[in-house]
Amino acid sequence: MKKMLLIEPKNLEPSRKDFEVIGVFNPGIVKFNDEYLMIARVAERVKQDDPEHYLVPHYVHGKGMQIIKLPKNSPDYDYSDSRIIKNHQKNYLTSISHFRIVRSKDGLNFDFSNNEFIMPSGIYEEYGIEDPRITQIEDKYYITYSAVSSCGINVSLKVTKDFINFTQFGNILHSDNKDCVIFPEKINDKYYALHRPSISQFGKLDIWTAESNNLINWGNHKIMLDARVTYTESSRVGSGAVPILTDRGWLEIYHSADIHDHYHLTAMLLDKDDPNKILMKSKQVLIQPTEDYERNGFVKDVVFSCGLIKEEDEIIIYYGVCDERIACAKLTIDEIWENMEVL
Amino acid sequence: MKKMLLIEPKNLEPSRKDFEVIGVFNPGIVKFNDEYLMIARVAERVKQDDPEHYLVPHYVHGKGMQIIKLPKNSPDYDYSDSRIIKNHQKNYLTSISHFRIVRSKDGLNFDFSNNEFIMPSGIYEEYGIEDPRITQIEDKYYITYSAVSSCGINVSLKVTKDFINFTQFGNILHSDNKDCVIFPEKINDKYYALHRPSISQFGKLDIWTAESNNLINWGNHKIMLDARVTYTESSRVGSGAVPILTDRGWLEIYHSADIHDHYHLTAMLLDKDDPNKILMKSKQVLIQPTEDYERNGFVKDVVFSCGLIKEEDEIIIYYGVCDERIACAKLTIDEIWENMEVL
Repeated sequence: MKKMLLIEPKNLEPSRKDFEVIGVFNPGIVKFNDEYLMIARVAERVKQDDPEHYLVPHYVHGKGMQIIKLPKNSPDYDYSDSRIIKNHQKNYLTSISHFRIVRSKDGLNFDFSNNEFIMPSGIYEEYGIEDPRITQIEDKYYITYSAVSSCGINVSLKVTKDFINFTQFGNILHSDNKDCVIFPEKINDKYYALHRPSISQFGKLDIWTAESNNLINWGNHKIMLDARVTYTESSRVGSGAVPILTDRGWLEIYHSADIHDHYHLTAMLLDKDDPNKILMKSKQVLIQPTEDYERNGFVKDVVFSCGLIKEEDEIIIYYGVCDERIACAKLTIDEIWENMEVL
Repeated sequence: MKKMLLIEPKNLEPSRKDFEVIGVFNPGIVKFNDEYLMIARVAERVKQDDPEHYLVPHYVHGKGMQIIKLPKNSPDYDYSDSRIIKNHQKNYLTSISHFRIVRSKDGLNFDFSNNEFIMPSGIYEEYGIEDPRITQIEDKYYITYSAVSSCGINVSLKVTKDFINFTQFGNILHSDNKDCVIFPEKINDKYYALHRPSISQFGKLDIWTAESNNLINWGNHKIMLDARVTYTESSRVGSGAVPILTDRGWLEIYHSADIHDHYHLTAMLLDKDDPNKILMKSKQVLIQPTEDYERNGFVKDVVFSCGLIKEEDEIIIYYGVCDERIACAKLTIDEIWENMEVL
């Protein structure tokens, strides 16, 4: 396996002059017109030039991007988490994410000059859009992502043929849900997705499957209990890259985090006719934070994949590191199979 | 408005001899073959005859109903809530609910002798089934309910033509979600439902709409921000009775709870062509706990409706009180209209 750091915040222009890019991470990727087309999540913060206030960005439907001023020395706001500011009535995100389309001829060197943006819009994207996955089905590309707002975290869907014009299909999964990936073809005449609902009194953070006949309405939600990682204490698992069909079944690369929020990536093999059924799983962790850029950043020890590219007998897993940068790892399919065991 | 207490736990036989019925509440209701057919939620507790252990019921897929023994004097279990026993790894419900079908000729006097049960089944109903709503669409009856388990609280669907044979359509909404009611006819060629997702970091406990083309797969989830109750501090709202079509639009009776978990019922009028759009709401609370049986029971001050029957110019709202009994209130439609104001 060969790991490489690909993209950093300094590579990108901010979307406006009073913002700064603090993260480019968790990209979806697809091959499109002989290019590697990546939709990267770009997190921006307001430049903090007010000594009295913490400046927080949010998108207001009908008004566009707005800046909220929160008093720095107020006991009403908890600033201890670098990502979330907590208040008894409402939580705020310190940064807001949009998507940036970047392209590459070789899958390693990306062109950032085009400045192709997908910005938050509507009431469900007040705090931004996050973690896109791109699934090609025939000549259309289905982009699932987290739409974050004071209405919760919903899974939304955009569809495009050309990555220029996008059609919005609203929230396909209700709050709170994240990490939705759609399978690239019908299985027994139904579309399938993996997703990760939140929990309250019961349940754990598990991966679920759902079925659809039109990619917009989803049902028959079923848990994948066996996706839970057992060889390290796991606080959650979540679907990762778009699954690919191999001669053995569906290969899915997904993430797990331990109780300290340290992430790693592993693989599971799903029955080709029943994606809720796990046939094999990684024996050992596939990708874990070992390099400095995987260990240190906006948050520590995070590797989080939304997409991969398969080429002949090799796959390139693209993943966000530490909610700040984008890296990739090249593996042979055989390396993945050799590390798997029957469940 | 005339209120009446209808059914109490002592009216029902337990499902087995070592259980006792502690609640019959939150019933769905429909007219079927000239009868009022009610599906009531029946909560049962294990008879506590072990001085050392707290006996907790749960349904195990493939094994049937089982009893767990939890040590009474262990610091690992928190018994302070009468409904939930908390443990650092897992929560348990002190009781488990199934459904009982009861019938009436006049809508007020119900026959309990038939003992028609719908019991929990499958892995999503480990801790029981709760709060059924019955929607008639043509010759079929769609029963939505909460399926509670260590996988979370999902919304499940059963369909029947005769209330003898039921077909299970799995989880139509993923965890955590409750209080799903399906509209009784298509609106602009789509089926609609109201539902109430849970929340984590963002969001409040609001009512949402969803759309479907087959009643099994759901999408385009949209929040109904205006359903929030403003005249009393509200911790949550939730859809209640199955909506009925009037000459002014869809009439929905729904619940709201304040920060002390005291419930009340109010009405909202939804646009007949767009059920996500609220036209009018109750000015004053429609039903609040005033009678002793509404104020005192397994929990205090709860009125919670899953169904109503419309007859000429009158409606009978059926509702659970205090998670223990079933009551009803007769109102004229005019009483409801007179108490409404345009939003």
